[in-house]
Amino acid sequence: MDQRDKDAIKEIVGEDHFTDELIDLVSYSYDSSDHDHRPDCAVYPADAEEIGKILQLANQRGFAVVPRGAGTSLAGSTVPAKGGVVLDMVRMNRILDIRIPDRQVVVQPGVVYAELQKALAPSGFCFPPDPASGKVCTLGGNVATNAGGIRGAKYGVTRDYVLALEVVLPDGRIVHTGTKCMKSASGLDLTRLFVGSEGVLGVITEITLKINPMPTASRTALASFETLRQAGQAVTDIMHSGILPSVLEIMEENTIRVLRENYGAELPDVKALLLVETDGYTDAEAAYAMGKVVSAFEANQAKTVSQAKDKASAEKLWAIRRSAGSVAGGLRPNNLSEDVTVPISKVPDLLEGIQKIMEGQPYPFVIFGHAGDGNLHPKIMFDGADPVQVKDVHHIAEQVFRLTCNLGGTLTGEHGIGLAKAPYMTMEHEPLAMELMRLLKRTLDPNNVLNPGKMALDD
Amino acid sequence: MDQRDKDAIKEIVGEDHFTDELIDLVSYSYDSSDHDHRPDCAVYPADAEEIGKILQLANQRGFAVVPRGAGTSLAGSTVPAKGGVVLDMVRMNRILDIRIPDRQVVVQPGVVYAELQKALAPSGFCFPPDPASGKVCTLGGNVATNAGGIRGAKYGVTRDYVLALEVVLPDGRIVHTGTKCMKSASGLDLTRLFVGSEGVLGVITEITLKINPMPTASRTALASFETLRQAGQAVTDIMHSGILPSVLEIMEENTIRVLRENYGAELPDVKALLLVETDGYTDAEAAYAMGKVVSAFEANQAKTVSQAKDKASAEKLWAIRRSAGSVAGGLRPNNLSEDVTVPISKVPDLLEGIQKIMEGQPYPFVIFGHAGDGNLHPKIMFDGADPVQVKDVHHIAEQVFRLTCNLGGTLTGEHGIGLAKAPYMTMEHEPLAMELMRLLKRTLDPNNVLNPGKMALDD
Ligand SMILES: Cc1cc2nc3c(=O)[nH]c(=O)nc-3n(C[C@H](O)[C@H](O)[C@H](O)COP(=O)(O)OP(=O)(O)OC[C@H]3O[C@@H](n4cnc5c(N)ncnc54)[C@H](O)[C@@H]3O)c2cc1C
Ligand SMILES: Cc1cc2nc3c(=O)[nH]c(=O)nc-3n(C[C@H](O)[C@H](O)[C@H](O)COP(=O)(O)OP(=O)(O)OC[C@H]3O[C@@H](n4cnc5c(N)ncnc54)[C@H](O)[C@@H]3O)c2cc1C
Repeated sequence: MDQRDKDAIKEIVGEDHFTDELIDLVSYSYDSSDHDHRPDCAVYPADAEEIGKILQLANQRGFAVVPRGAGTSLAGSTVPAKGGVVLDMVRMNRILDIRIPDRQVVVQPGVVYAELQKALAPSGFCFPPDPASGKVCTLGGNVATNAGGIRGAKYGVTRDYVLALEVVLPDGRIVHTGTKCMKSASGLDLTRLFVGSEGVLGVITEITLKINPMPTASRTALASFETLRQAGQAVTDIMHSGILPSVLEIMEENTIRVLRENYGAELPDVKALLLVETDGYTDAEAAYAMGKVVSAFEANQAKTVSQAKDKASAEKLWAIRRSAGSVAGGLRPNNLSEDVTVPISKVPDLLEGIQKIMEGQPYPFVIFGHAGDGNLHPKIMFDGADPVQVKDVHHIAEQVFRLTCNLGGTLTGEHGIGLAKAPYMTMEHEPLAMELMRLLKRTLDPNNVLNPGKMALDD
Repeated sequence: MDQRDKDAIKEIVGEDHFTDELIDLVSYSYDSSDHDHRPDCAVYPADAEEIGKILQLANQRGFAVVPRGAGTSLAGSTVPAKGGVVLDMVRMNRILDIRIPDRQVVVQPGVVYAELQKALAPSGFCFPPDPASGKVCTLGGNVATNAGGIRGAKYGVTRDYVLALEVVLPDGRIVHTGTKCMKSASGLDLTRLFVGSEGVLGVITEITLKINPMPTASRTALASFETLRQAGQAVTDIMHSGILPSVLEIMEENTIRVLRENYGAELPDVKALLLVETDGYTDAEAAYAMGKVVSAFEANQAKTVSQAKDKASAEKLWAIRRSAGSVAGGLRPNNLSEDVTVPISKVPDLLEGIQKIMEGQPYPFVIFGHAGDGNLHPKIMFDGADPVQVKDVHHIAEQVFRLTCNLGGTLTGEHGIGLAKAPYMTMEHEPLAMELMRLLKRTLDPNNVLNPGKMALDD
């Protein structure tokens, strides 16, 4: 980009909503991944029209445009790999409409996930996906990455809640997709073309979401198992039992050891923990489902089963799971937080396979995740200042991806592909699927101006 | 198509799996809509490879290829509007895999909805969408039309359950989309490009579906209201009450009158009925939710409230709703069964608006539908042998569509666009959305061989 381009952009958004100061460009050069690349400038657009004009200019002048929510991507999805303009959506942060009787909300993309939850709470409603980054990440980012969370097994992911979108297309035109009704079978599904598209097909400028009444009762239990297979069989038995737990988390032995040694958790010396929450509108419902869960624990020789008696004791059990990531993360300066997913019954195979890959490696690691939907988060700690360690860890990640794909899994359950997993796309997706994705990208964005370099779409 | 084309097709599928006998072509010329057009021939393909070869030939020779499930489409979606070959998927009717611990099934597209339910029932699982045509329609048809049903408000539609697809593209190549995991954020969402695409973008040859444990407890109640507004407000209050009923059906005065006069139903002389079911795994849960519902009934001066005491009395209440369509349908030789959908709070406006449109018209009509997701099924009875009546009814339908779109609604909640609603697509979708849909069609099917003439995509 040259000064003329920057001046033209200033003209569009106004001087105050433009920056090319180095300190800002550095901030916009990274996200929560270990990738980074500086943009040429960043803007704070006020509306879809301004974004449209920037994209028109981008097509004429050939610079890249990268939408950015809160920059919490763990996959480098929002790193401006080819420079260009970052669109920081922070000014488009209004909740436009909450319509409880219609069971929907209309928001701008820059609204932070937790802000929406706060606004919905008085009505007893919520937008269920619940990513762990919810206090920081934006709804635009959630839609663009199809974000999920700890209650995904029962309540699904972002995709299941998006009813309608306003999107600025790569050529700058503004399109409205979907419907403000609860359902529709009218025409091709343009909406879901953009959900999970990581900003490569369009800039999302308005989102209509379906919302859910919040469950009001829950039960929580933690069980420990002396073998991974017993824990795995307990999960299988829970799936067979005819209930869907709202949370079904697994932690393996390294996680348990780290929590005992570095967090003072009083945990037995076992191979696996399962943390389960059941829910409903009545305690009877949550208790009935928990009964099924505890039966599955017992049938599989759980060494210990702790059932929370009240909110405070449930909170204690939850604290164990919640602190796993950060406690482990503290062991070394850097860590790689992975997001591989397999069919539910393959979780024990994936856990054992990762443990095997890590055998003899000098890096501390933990594995925990959502056993209820097969989504595991292995976390490998290392020192990013040492290039040998960085190389090692990338090599380990590649082995984990290969193992995952061999188990019929997917590279990412919720974090997305971005830059981090672009090189591995062909491990999971067959050549024709890749060709179709690239065809879609090329058709909508022939000049490749929108978030280029991501998802292996422009190779 | 000439004899050479037919011979080439016979070569692909085998003599026994080909027909161009008039009696068969007549059968394949219509579906459950009032549209019809004869194909040149029909085949019963054994697998994706055969379908691929037929599509390659179609591109070379320029004939149309139309996938067909059970032909229950109410929109003319499977009528071979431009002739060509009908692909009757009846031989591809195997349930390939039921994996309860992975919460999924793999099926061929010709499996009848009810057959899958039967196969899942012993495990206590189900594929929730539950279209009323479930005993006849196929899963391929369900995916291709994004089918929904009476429990959609709580359990969603087909789209929410499709994990992975095998699809034969218009050029004959076979692609695998999606993942066999519960969730994924890997790449563009190719799967949902095909869900609801009415066979215009690809032929679905294998489907992986997420399944749900079946709720085991339910409560049912029927309430009557002296004004539509009271019934509408009761629905709004139920939405505010923090629970999601599994069924929330509305029937207006014409339906009530027809049921009283032609079915002998003992119903009060009122403006609206609401039939509600709540569910859960425990009776306590279903009863709690029903408590909220009954409070909403009472707060809105329900004239009568009947709560079912047991299965048999619930069945009696259900019979009223279930017979509404067929009892009304018997009043005249033909009927138009519509499927318009509006935001939930607009249901009373839509009901009143349709009643107004029908004022002074000589045609009996009823309106009932899924108030819980805003999807109404107005049904207008007429004599299709009288061209004046046919013209009248089409004119009425157009007014209903306009009203629906003015209320922020969609032309179809679950039946699809096909031929029937193709002329109205631009009422709902803005020009750029239409352009995008057509661009997708043209990009994937440049020769327009697959199910041409549908959804206004080739205008
Ligand atoms: C501590 C931590 C915990 C996390 N936990 C979870 C979790 O539980 N579940 C989960 O799914 N993810 C999780 N993540 C990852 C991340 O938070 C999610 O991917 C989130 O959805 C990203 O939102 P964001 O606003 O930060 O988007 P960004 O990181 O800014 O952008 C992400 C992608 O979305 C695109 N994008 C953003 N806004 C728009 C827009 N308006 N239009 C078009 N494209 C846009 C960007 O171009 C980029 O490709 C976690 C991250 C961290 C750091
Ligand atoms: C009495 C009655 C009640 C109904 N109730 C409901 C209801 O409650 N909910 C609802 O949603 N619908 C309902 N319908 C409409 C209809 O049953 C649904 O649209 C159903 O999904 C169609 O399935 P089918 O197998 O009959 O498909 P068809 O009618 O044969 O085809 C429908 C469309 O799907 C395409 N198609 C079929 N198979 C494939 C394939 N393998 N690959 C690609 N495309 C394919 C066809 O080309 C066509 O465009 C009802 C219909 C009737 C007659």
